[in-house]
Amino acid sequence: MTVITSKDNPSVKLYMKLSSSKKERRNSGLYVLEGFRLIEDAVNEKALLKQLFFTEDAYEKYSDELSQVDLKEVKILIISNELGIKISCTEKPQGVFAICEMPPARSLEKEIIKSGKYVVLHGLQDPGNLGMIIRTADAVGMDGVILSESCELYSPKVIRSTMGSAFRMKIFETRDTDELFSCLEANGIKSYAAVIDKDAVDLRTITFDGGCAVFIGNEGNGLPPEVASRCTVKATIRMSGHINSLNAAMATGIFMWEMSGSSIH
Amino acid sequence: MTVITSKDNPSVKLYMKLSSSKKERRNSGLYVLEGFRLIEDAVNEKALLKQLFFTEDAYEKYSDELSQVDLKEVKILIISNELGIKISCTEKPQGVFAICEMPPARSLEKEIIKSGKYVVLHGLQDPGNLGMIIRTADAVGMDGVILSESCELYSPKVIRSTMGSAFRMKIFETRDTDELFSCLEANGIKSYAAVIDKDAVDLRTITFDGGCAVFIGNEGNGLPPEVASRCTVKATIRMSGHINSLNAAMATGIFMWEMSGSSIH
Repeated sequence: MTVITSKDNPSVKLYMKLSSSKKERRNSGLYVLEGFRLIEDAVNEKALLKQLFFTEDAYEKYSDELSQVDLKEVKILIISNELGIKISCTEKPQGVFAICEMPPARSLEKEIIKSGKYVVLHGLQDPGNLGMIIRTADAVGMDGVILSESCELYSPKVIRSTMGSAFRMKIFETRDTDELFSCLEANGIKSYAAVIDKDAVDLRTITFDGGCAVFIGNEGNGLPPEVASRCTVKATIRMSGHINSLNAAMATGIFMWEMSGSSIH
Repeated sequence: MTVITSKDNPSVKLYMKLSSSKKERRNSGLYVLEGFRLIEDAVNEKALLKQLFFTEDAYEKYSDELSQVDLKEVKILIISNELGIKISCTEKPQGVFAICEMPPARSLEKEIIKSGKYVVLHGLQDPGNLGMIIRTADAVGMDGVILSESCELYSPKVIRSTMGSAFRMKIFETRDTDELFSCLEANGIKSYAAVIDKDAVDLRTITFDGGCAVFIGNEGNGLPPEVASRCTVKATIRMSGHINSLNAAMATGIFMWEMSGSSIH
């Protein structure tokens, strides 16, 4: 068993580039995963693993469990424990890393469900928020998350904070707001702008019948007025406390909870 | 104007100790704040500021705004920009720091409201989660947050992530679960254990009339069975997706949203 100790190994080099550079990810169509559970989830949800790295210690620790995961022809490299610490992005490295291929981009036009519940993230910037929203969307059973000029799905922090939901949720990306509205309208899907505005409709009074999509804006600035005004309804979470008191992920979670509840009741 | 450049200055030393050590905070009854808005919030909400630090740049930048804040007799020290970077805990330091005195501990027995809505955090460990829960509790208008064997309120990360809500919310601490249940029962407050359990009552079907308190457990392990079973009702968020798909802060936010909605409707 050869143990790689150098950062100059081409595979290790590729991993580190993909881990730190959005441009590298975009150009190659590859992204990285770290941690045994996350990689196990990825395999179970048919993510396209290209390469696995284990530190010596991790290989010993996980080899039993590993034999139960269907890895087909994934190449496994063993790296030294020291190198594992160097390439890790987490505080407590498990010593398990992977390079994956991004799946082909989904087409909202082809996959959209007329009675579906969607969340559109327009200009969302914080990776932790995006991860938490995808995770919650999975939990409450949304039909899709649509990224519109938001932060990158395949950044390691986003993928990690989705806790595996990134592999399960239907995630669409769009750069064209006109096309997005056309597609929603053509399918009879009502759009709701989540805004902080005392004249907007109180979320608690809305019944989300049929297909609907809620638009969430940027953490600091909210939705641009031209996007909010194209939505069918402007909706707001009435707050008892301070106006600054809901973060974007929490507000989105509450909207999704209300939307998904309508179809369950 | 004397500019402090050394970490050995007694006030700077105290700030750094309070910033990094829970023990130091507990023994002294002091804690730290970083960032202009947070400190402004603290002042407006009557937090007990003892000492302010500005870097030279920050003092120039904020001096106009500062003159509008009622600082009474708070001592202000000017530190060098370099020292500001050294003592900061954030990625983009603003160069504004404070030492505050903790307020006296609140007594739940004395302040409890019979028709109040409370959240009890039992064994919650993540500072980011605690901060987000306090912030959300403020937004939806809860009557109090009760910390029971949870992480420390005054850690810089918790205080920062509450975005000022830590100064507005009524926060109680208890180490005695028996006493807590007795106090709730004596005031006719119904207790709800938030659990992941298919036999528990579906949160969507519950009407939270009158006084109620929801118990939230540890991120990894949930509520201990002996605590859950003492609650009036076991309640659960039915998930469409993966069981691992809600983080503790989000689940708590959804519970609080449902509880606070009952009194508004």
